[in-house]
Amino acid sequence: MAGSVFGNILKCTTWGESHGPALGAVLDGCPAGLAIDEDYIQMFMDRRKPGQSDFSTKRNESDKVMILSGVFEGKTTGTPISLMINNNSQISKDYSNIAECYRPGHADYTFDEKYGFRDYRGGGRSSGRETAGRVAAGAIAIKLLSEFGINFTTFVESVGDISIDYNKFDKNEISNNKLYMPDKDAAEKAAEYLKNVSADKDSSGAVVKCIIDNVPAGLGDPVFDKLDARLASAIMSIGAVKSFEVGNGKAVSKLKGSENNDEFYIDNGEVRKRTNNSGGILGGISDGSSIILTAAFKPTPSIYKSQKTVNNKHEDIELEIKGRHDPIIAPRAVVVVEAMSALVIADALLMNCSSKLDNLKKIYEV
Amino acid sequence: MAGSVFGNILKCTTWGESHGPALGAVLDGCPAGLAIDEDYIQMFMDRRKPGQSDFSTKRNESDKVMILSGVFEGKTTGTPISLMINNNSQISKDYSNIAECYRPGHADYTFDEKYGFRDYRGGGRSSGRETAGRVAAGAIAIKLLSEFGINFTTFVESVGDISIDYNKFDKNEISNNKLYMPDKDAAEKAAEYLKNVSADKDSSGAVVKCIIDNVPAGLGDPVFDKLDARLASAIMSIGAVKSFEVGNGKAVSKLKGSENNDEFYIDNGEVRKRTNNSGGILGGISDGSSIILTAAFKPTPSIYKSQKTVNNKHEDIELEIKGRHDPIIAPRAVVVVEAMSALVIADALLMNCSSKLDNLKKIYEV
Amino acid sequence: MAGSVFGNILKCTTWGESHGPALGAVLDGCPAGLAIDEDYIQMFMDRRKPGQSDFSTKRNESDKVMILSGVFEGKTTGTPISLMINNNSQISKDYSNIAECYRPGHADYTFDEKYGFRDYRGGGRSSGRETAGRVAAGAIAIKLLSEFGINFTTFVESVGDISIDYNKFDKNEISNNKLYMPDKDAAEKAAEYLKNVSADKDSSGAVVKCIIDNVPAGLGDPVFDKLDARLASAIMSIGAVKSFEVGNGKAVSKLKGSENNDEFYIDNGEVRKRTNNSGGILGGISDGSSIILTAAFKPTPSIYKSQKTVNNKHEDIELEIKGRHDPIIAPRAVVVVEAMSALVIADALLMNCSSKLDNLKKIYEV
Amino acid sequence: MAGSVFGNILKCTTWGESHGPALGAVLDGCPAGLAIDEDYIQMFMDRRKPGQSDFSTKRNESDKVMILSGVFEGKTTGTPISLMINNNSQISKDYSNIAECYRPGHADYTFDEKYGFRDYRGGGRSSGRETAGRVAAGAIAIKLLSEFGINFTTFVESVGDISIDYNKFDKNEISNNKLYMPDKDAAEKAAEYLKNVSADKDSSGAVVKCIIDNVPAGLGDPVFDKLDARLASAIMSIGAVKSFEVGNGKAVSKLKGSENNDEFYIDNGEVRKRTNNSGGILGGISDGSSIILTAAFKPTPSIYKSQKTVNNKHEDIELEIKGRHDPIIAPRAVVVVEAMSALVIADALLMNCSSKLDNLKKIYEV
Repeated sequence: MAGSVFGNILKCTTWGESHGPALGAVLDGCPAGLAIDEDYIQMFMDRRKPGQSDFSTKRNESDKVMILSGVFEGKTTGTPISLMINNNSQISKDYSNIAECYRPGHADYTFDEKYGFRDYRGGGRSSGRETAGRVAAGAIAIKLLSEFGINFTTFVESVGDISIDYNKFDKNEISNNKLYMPDKDAAEKAAEYLKNVSADKDSSGAVVKCIIDNVPAGLGDPVFDKLDARLASAIMSIGAVKSFEVGNGKAVSKLKGSENNDEFYIDNGEVRKRTNNSGGILGGISDGSSIILTAAFKPTPSIYKSQKTVNNKHEDIELEIKGRHDPIIAPRAVVVVEAMSALVIADALLMNCSSKLDNLKKIYEV
Repeated sequence: MAGSVFGNILKCTTWGESHGPALGAVLDGCPAGLAIDEDYIQMFMDRRKPGQSDFSTKRNESDKVMILSGVFEGKTTGTPISLMINNNSQISKDYSNIAECYRPGHADYTFDEKYGFRDYRGGGRSSGRETAGRVAAGAIAIKLLSEFGINFTTFVESVGDISIDYNKFDKNEISNNKLYMPDKDAAEKAAEYLKNVSADKDSSGAVVKCIIDNVPAGLGDPVFDKLDARLASAIMSIGAVKSFEVGNGKAVSKLKGSENNDEFYIDNGEVRKRTNNSGGILGGISDGSSIILTAAFKPTPSIYKSQKTVNNKHEDIELEIKGRHDPIIAPRAVVVVEAMSALVIADALLMNCSSKLDNLKKIYEV
Repeated sequence: MAGSVFGNILKCTTWGESHGPALGAVLDGCPAGLAIDEDYIQMFMDRRKPGQSDFSTKRNESDKVMILSGVFEGKTTGTPISLMINNNSQISKDYSNIAECYRPGHADYTFDEKYGFRDYRGGGRSSGRETAGRVAAGAIAIKLLSEFGINFTTFVESVGDISIDYNKFDKNEISNNKLYMPDKDAAEKAAEYLKNVSADKDSSGAVVKCIIDNVPAGLGDPVFDKLDARLASAIMSIGAVKSFEVGNGKAVSKLKGSENNDEFYIDNGEVRKRTNNSGGILGGISDGSSIILTAAFKPTPSIYKSQKTVNNKHEDIELEIKGRHDPIIAPRAVVVVEAMSALVIADALLMNCSSKLDNLKKIYEV
Repeated sequence: MAGSVFGNILKCTTWGESHGPALGAVLDGCPAGLAIDEDYIQMFMDRRKPGQSDFSTKRNESDKVMILSGVFEGKTTGTPISLMINNNSQISKDYSNIAECYRPGHADYTFDEKYGFRDYRGGGRSSGRETAGRVAAGAIAIKLLSEFGINFTTFVESVGDISIDYNKFDKNEISNNKLYMPDKDAAEKAAEYLKNVSADKDSSGAVVKCIIDNVPAGLGDPVFDKLDARLASAIMSIGAVKSFEVGNGKAVSKLKGSENNDEFYIDNGEVRKRTNNSGGILGGISDGSSIILTAAFKPTPSIYKSQKTVNNKHEDIELEIKGRHDPIIAPRAVVVVEAMSALVIADALLMNCSSKLDNLKKIYEV
């Protein structure tokens, strides 16, 4: 209820602060019998790990994940999976100057207003570091979905004004550059742009896209638990995301029905769509085509430039943020978007099991 | 779990199909002692009622709301408030031609895939008519919030390419034109545009904006239940919404930190922000400035133009939709956006009561 | 959150007061494709209907249930099923003398303390009449379970000191006597006892038993959502229930392990138990044998005898309750116990669908 | 959803198996500002720790609790509190002989039926060891409640046929004997009885009672979330509990209304009850008098006597359980009953904050 539990059947609870001894997640509701191990999860952890490039914080964390429960002899048991990541590099002194001040664009002020005080070390609970637990849990959801052929392509679509060229889209390129962009040229331009932004003690926004292939038709529920509503909630819950779009997204506002409607046709007896403006969801339920999501990330609020702000004694002050922080959030958040999307799709996959009597009869063999 | 229950403490359950005998909502968790009556709720019902203009369906519905429980001698009792709206105009024959076909842009196909069959009359549960229950429940949330000075300004920001001019913004104008636009000139241009679109048997998308004033700082929860995540879920759960933005929204992707950060300053001892790029939310928690939301609505998928599609026997067919439908969804959806936002803010207001020990001590007087 | 929503996947929301215009329930999450109609539900409504005998209130209610949504052409559609029962006999004047006083054993005082005031007509929301909605929703759960061969035998086991003799147990007798006892002799003795109690302006407690046959092994979840924990919550939520037992119940406290353990053995290749002291549940999960529940009902708190109590001005007063009330609660509550048990078992049946990967693979055919 | 998350606002998630590296709990929703530390929690851990006496397992566990998040400078921050206890003494070989067999009275068979396989080491997730996490989380709830003067008296009321004499009730005695009984003589007799039971390779059932003083009137919600329904769910979720009673409990079935009703009277302007047959709850809402709960624990199913049972190859076998186990469950479970009750009462305390508009106005100062 206080916001750290996510999901209906597949419930993910995260815990931990930036500078506590550890952080983690508990994933309850994962079906029994799924093969999983720490190495598999670690692949995803490594994608958001700090210190990978010039564009990510120098904080030194191995982000080694441990499975503490819910897995026996290499398979999930159906009981809660506890995942823990130790914090190795909690240099609290780095953050001592922000104990009393409210950094612009951060949650310092709102936490103080809500709770009366806050763990100010490295942003405490509001730190991006909290997403480590999400990625660990999401990796298990991704593994579960892979059993049904469902897979993810997630990448940075644009950095500032520099957007990828879809004609040059190369899936393999995504993991080849530090910005997780599927277009080598765009990635190089963006890297150049970011160097200038960094040199200017500033930071940049960006857009992340997630394409989910092979989702069966029928996932998601009408009305409030529409699949896109759940995905919106999941993606907007990532700090720094300020917009969420599905399919054509905001562009639909300028289109006509005849332009935006996707024509159905029959292909080898199967229902298909000629276009996918809907982004794979109709009426809140997956339609069998690829699900396409877009999220815009704000520029890192921590910048080295001097900023005017206030402190908790309600005095105007001048602030220079020191310490370690990324000039851009999106590249390391790519895997977080993927993890959160996977938690939603997996949850919908489980919920859909009981949507019709015929499904139940298959399971209980009556 | 099947998607028709929304909220944490303040729980709204809607029920009903387009052509059933009635539809409604049950609102559980509303605090006792709030003055409410059917007339107040009816004001909101009338804003989404069909038949108001050339741009809304000719379906004749009084949309008269009845309070069946939870209110005694003019005040809420703390028990579930049951709200019902009879359907008067269920001309099922209008829709008999769509029983077997899958309309492009609609949920016919996905409902069939999920459930094995569907109530095809007027879209059944996936009809926009379902939102009547949401508006009735939302009106009570709006009344509750008004007790704390919180109020809503919700309007159509653009229709197709025609956008309002914020220099001409006139709040009073919103209820003066059938498109609920706060700029008379833009409203007239948009009306002209819609006439042409209608004449062309087509439909148009649009953008709706919601500004919520006087929200106290501290509402919303960290991590998954961020206030913007909950709002995103609520707004994206409205059929036809394809994007959700808070504050600067997608534009943040092109900005630098120094441009996007809102500078704090002290005004008469109070913490204020010079700008409101964050849209009133920092770290998922309200920051005391106005909350600003933007939603893009797709063009009405039901168009009079002939369309290629398929039927449930998996045959290619040609479809001409007859019957009653709006050439634009957004104007009647303005109040739905407001209702859903209110349900979220009210829920957050209730949840926040127990966020710190000091609050509890005030209530239990220890 | 305010207590009127029950269940995980199969969510039942009830609403309505004793003397409002109507009351009802919304059942969300029922799988699509279940044949159901008002006549079927009515059979269950009639079992709790008032005015059936000398031992139930003379209040004249037809308790006719209406299905307002979620059923199309005789089958559930997977969307919320709205069930409504009109109140015909709201003689508010009957209750005018209790507006200000706190009846012993009733919720008058606690509602006032919690909410500041209450709908005092006939007990308002705390009236046993609220269970009408539960029975309507529960009837659908019972129908769902019958598709899997699961069935219920629910009856009054004892009235005051008069207990049935299990050697004379006759299932058919249950519906033959007004006390729903499966032993004709005991029923006659109990009826005689109740006449004396009534003549004495008093009321009697009783015990209700529910036996659920053919529940497959595997339903229920470890730890907090144990099947017996969920059943306990459901049964204790019925007003007047003061104890809940499963299997041997409280008697286990006097037993030794060697007496209480149920020996497993193999019968035609199947695992069976020689005894059923566990009441069909081991470790919170159904073990394939009959589930056996016992609930004790307190005597009706409304008695015609004069009682000392207080009013809402905090004055000592003498109270004589007039109007209509039963001298015993249990007989009419038999069907409520059955309905609530069915909601729990059905919910567990749905939840269990996603408990192992093999189940999912059957449904998604991978 | 899979059963390891408990509570509405105050949400407790437990994780861990008997023989995994660790187990723990995450408590979300605890108000900010509560003073708490590991030493305080450890006092409760020590009450359920194994190896305290002849009547508890010789397993050697320090059960040292660690706080990993959610507490800063000695106070809760409002974010999830992660609590972890390392398992030191996982001697898996002790349990190797039960990998394939289904122990009578245990969850081995039902876990296999539900999940397809199980972590058989020491009972895995169904081990009583799981309650360590509950006690850690419950200790925080107890601390929170103590801020409002609410306190607990929990004890063993009877062992087999040996019951305490309430005339000799001595609260201080509870912690003086290994059986946590408040009557020294009864404790001695019970100890003698248990020695004989142990010598006979058998085990004994028992009854635990919990009395909660100073609960303010108004906690709990009508209908499904009645305070006693929530308590029943919490207590019945403790493995081995087979009955739950509130107040007079099952005895009400033999009483008349005039005997069971609690008379209200005015004492110094306050509403009081002459008796407390209701056990402190009326209509599901606390009435200001002490809450009285009773739970019956079955005898430990693990006994040293040879038992007939079956294995997972569906063969009849003879089983002799070796290893470490208690001849009685109740004494170490006393603190678990207290912890679970505290989680429920604390959750109800938080939920009740938003029950009336007046409360909200106090908090938001309008």
